[in-house]
Amino acid sequence: MEAYAQHTGKLFIISGPSGAGKGTICKRLIEDSDPDRMELSVSMTTRPPRKGEVDGVSYYFVTMEQFRENVLADGFLEHAEVYGNCYGTPKAKVIEKLEAGIDVVLEIDIQGAMNVKKAYPDGIFIFILPPSMSILRKRLTGRGTDSMDIIDMRLSKTLGELSYIEEYDYVVVNGELEEAVDRVKAIVVAEHSRVTENINELIERYKEEI
Amino acid sequence: MEAYAQHTGKLFIISGPSGAGKGTICKRLIEDSDPDRMELSVSMTTRPPRKGEVDGVSYYFVTMEQFRENVLADGFLEHAEVYGNCYGTPKAKVIEKLEAGIDVVLEIDIQGAMNVKKAYPDGIFIFILPPSMSILRKRLTGRGTDSMDIIDMRLSKTLGELSYIEEYDYVVVNGELEEAVDRVKAIVVAEHSRVTENINELIERYKEEI
Repeated sequence: MEAYAQHTGKLFIISGPSGAGKGTICKRLIEDSDPDRMELSVSMTTRPPRKGEVDGVSYYFVTMEQFRENVLADGFLEHAEVYGNCYGTPKAKVIEKLEAGIDVVLEIDIQGAMNVKKAYPDGIFIFILPPSMSILRKRLTGRGTDSMDIIDMRLSKTLGELSYIEEYDYVVVNGELEEAVDRVKAIVVAEHSRVTENINELIERYKEEI
Repeated sequence: MEAYAQHTGKLFIISGPSGAGKGTICKRLIEDSDPDRMELSVSMTTRPPRKGEVDGVSYYFVTMEQFRENVLADGFLEHAEVYGNCYGTPKAKVIEKLEAGIDVVLEIDIQGAMNVKKAYPDGIFIFILPPSMSILRKRLTGRGTDSMDIIDMRLSKTLGELSYIEEYDYVVVNGELEEAVDRVKAIVVAEHSRVTENINELIERYKEEI
């Protein structure tokens, strides 16, 4: 099974509304995984490195010109501008990992996930959902970073975003973190047991054995 | 999530060649599961009950006439004759459980699974594979029940059956039993996180909350 499962890595897109807890889930997923089997996707950015950030680990730090060249070369699974800085998921880096048999985990908002889906439809798209809108409101309020107006705006944005769930393969409600992490782990295991086009190689191996 | 996951049960078909260990895996799956959430499918048979067998638990024991009536009424997901006795999976009993939100596990050979697929394509079809043909030979020899000729025949039948894997959703290699059981459990969890047509109800619940 291992040889079959390891044949190629899979791209897991962990996505969902702000406050759903996708970052925490990704962190736990990576912490608990074998580093030879699963890695977090590293984004490319034009934002200058902050203290302690390491190129190629925190981000790939590039100039605006390099970033633009990569856009023109169709080199991103998705990219976006946030407050004047550009961020993107470099396609070549992801493909390289997948071909080496390493799963890649990509944490991204819903709009970004929809762009990734266009560029890489073979990805496994997991929507992380807060257990209820009232709990989401509590979480966003608890952060203490946003005014009530901003929180109301986020909640109403979230409602709109729910209609994208049907574009995803899985939905995981993040009520209890441990349960949600276990569910995502189960999805990873299950996806590696899926019957895919690789199955013919497996069958050939059995036939040669006789 | 629970309400969403429990909405309807799912039919898991655990299938594969003789000696792959599907029976042991099903047994473990049921033992470790909540009896309110998962049950083994009970077959209907014309074979007379053996000592200790309970009607409705071991089998549904019926007369040949009752069995034939059920065949004519399209009442089986699959049925077959073995040594003059008839066996079948009663469709109504399975649907009843699924509608009550209970998963049903069906252990069946490959031909039976293919018939179930025609009758109930929404089932989740899991192929249990021995880790290698030489290990399968050892297992079959170890049983001590079959002659070498019969074992050779079984192995060559198995090779032919491998081509059916592509009709399945998942393939689980049963090398280490615990690992195989864990994989099947992960598949069950993952399938209950799948985005299905029920998703609209979930979304409506969130919208009503605001």
